This record gives sequence, C-alpha cells and structure tokens, in this order.
Amino acid sequence: MMYEKAHIVLTESEKQKIEVVDCALDDFDRTGICILTYVNTDLCCAKEMVLMPGQTCPEHTHKPLDNGYMGKEETFRCRYGKVYLHVAGEATPDPAVKAPAGDEAYYTAAREIVLNPGEQYTLVPDTLHWFQAGPEGAVISEFSTASHDEYDIFTDPRIKRV
Amino acid sequence: MMYEKAHIVLTESEKQKIEVVDCALDDFDRTGICILTYVNTDLCCAKEMVLMPGQTCPEHTHKPLDNGYMGKEETFRCRYGKVYLHVAGEATPDPAVKAPAGDEAYYTAAREIVLNPGEQYTLVPDTLHWFQAGPEGAVISEFSTASHDEYDIFTDPRIKRV
Ligand SMILES: [Zn+2]
Ligand SMILES: [Zn+2]
Repeated sequence: MMYEKAHIVLTESEKQKIEVVDCALDDFDRTGICILTYVNTDLCCAKEMVLMPGQTCPEHTHKPLDNGYMGKEETFRCRYGKVYLHVAGEATPDPAVKAPAGDEAYYTAAREIVLNPGEQYTLVPDTLHWFQAGPEGAVISEFSTASHDEYDIFTDPRIKRV
Repeated sequence: MMYEKAHIVLTESEKQKIEVVDCALDDFDRTGICILTYVNTDLCCAKEMVLMPGQTCPEHTHKPLDNGYMGKEETFRCRYGKVYLHVAGEATPDPAVKAPAGDEAYYTAAREIVLNPGEQYTLVPDTLHWFQAGPEGAVISEFSTASHDEYDIFTDPRIKRV
C-alpha cells in the first residue's frame, strides 16, 4: 500500500475509512484519488492523500459559501513520489505532464508546479487546480481550512464528488 | 535525527529552519521541543514537532485574541514514538508519566491521553495542555488554526516562548 511506502502509520480503523474517490467517472486508474481525512472541523482540516502512478485528481475549485466560509486555503505537501500540481495562472511553456487524453477540455489551469518529497505549495482560497502523480505515484499531505467536499466545483460536468 | 527515524522527508532549507525551543528555562533535555512550521497563515497552520526521550513541552494554552481570533484548535497526531498528552479535565487516576521533578506546581492539566503512532487527539481552543515523550522520543504532527506563539500563556511564569 502506498501509505506504507511513505512510512505513514495508520490505525486499523483509519485504514477502513480511506475514501476511494472515482468522481463518478468510472475510470479510477486514470482519474481519481484515495483520501484519508485525519480531522475536519469548522476551522481546519488535514488529510493524507494517495495518487497511483500517473493518476490525476481532476480540476476543481473550492468557492466561498453563503455562511461566511471564504473558500478553502490548501497546502499540498509531497511526502512520497512526485506531484505535478497545476494551478490557474500563466501557463508553463513546456509542462512535464498532460491532462488525461480525451478530457483536455476540462483541464484549464496550466501553471505547473513540481513537488518532490518535502516540497509543498499553498493555494489561496478559490484557486482552480488539478494534480497528477509521477511514475511512482504520490503521497500528499493536505493542510487546509474546513473541507466541504459536497460544494467543490469541478470543471468536468460529468463529475460527482459526493 | 528524529525526523529521519520517523521517515519524515525535509528539504535542506527546512532543516535550517527547525526551531529549538528551550522556553528560556535552559534545561532543554528535560523541558523543550523542536518545531518545524510547514505553513502558518491567518487561517491555518501545520507543524512537525520532535520531543527527545522523556522530554516535556510545558503546560500552556492558546487564548482568544482581541482581533477576533478564537484561540488555537490543535490536533496532535503521533507519527513516531509515544506521546503522553495531558489536558484540563478529570484527573487520570494512575498517570503513566509525571511532570518534570521540581516543576510540579506548573503542571495542572491532569487528564492523560496516550498517543501511539497513528493516534491523534483534537483540543478545542483555549484548552490547557502539556505533553511528554516516551523513552524513544516522539514525532508529532500538529494541524491547527493560526499559530500566534508570542501570545501563548504558560503556567510557569519563568517561561518565555518567543
Ligand atoms: Zn482542492
Ligand atoms: Zn499548544
């Protein structure tokens, strides 16, 4: 298991709680992610996420909500493998990775940030983003404000997150 | 180095940024902690902390501030070793560890929570707490709201945090 490769210790009950997210695309090997949520209160959230080799977490953003929530500030920290994070902004001229073939229309964020183990990047709230693992897969810690997955906005209209 | 024992990968520049906190007690082997802050924005904060074998992080709380900050919500997740966390509440009858000898007056939180690797505990804001490592030391991830170390309130009046 990828968590073990990264030497992340999980309890037995946590292992049962790992979410296998296929985003309703039924194409998990290409597009999807595994997520273990350590904590998610009204104030902050921490997760440990796994991407299989070459797997992509599809493009989305976390909008402000009517209840005063300002959107999700997210820090991604690579623990294992390699992460190609793409965020809205000036396009990287020669990106190392591509969106999943056939789905290019749903991937618009084109500034590529490469994260190796120990490297991290913080997104301000409501930044459009997607990310893909390198050939060894990736384990990524996420430190953020509260998660409201049911309100995530995906660029691909076929996607259902929750 | 303890971070390596826990297989936590740090960049070279992060290794230079590790804070060695002796709380101005000049008694680091007994009372102190090493802290690497990964991220600390107005909204949330993540740290990786190290306690040496038997070392104690002294009792403190994180108060609400005049600017609307409601105090620090903290989740402690043990990654390596063993953590004896003590929080305000009903005293544990037979606690496994004791406050540093001679300093007992400054340790009042007496509900003991034992965290093994993969185990975690979330403190609501403004909970008095202290923690001590077991014989192998400990590596602890902290996920929290914003940190304002300079406003931490320590029970021991000799302590200066920043
Ligand atoms: Zn996101
Ligand atoms: Zn604290």
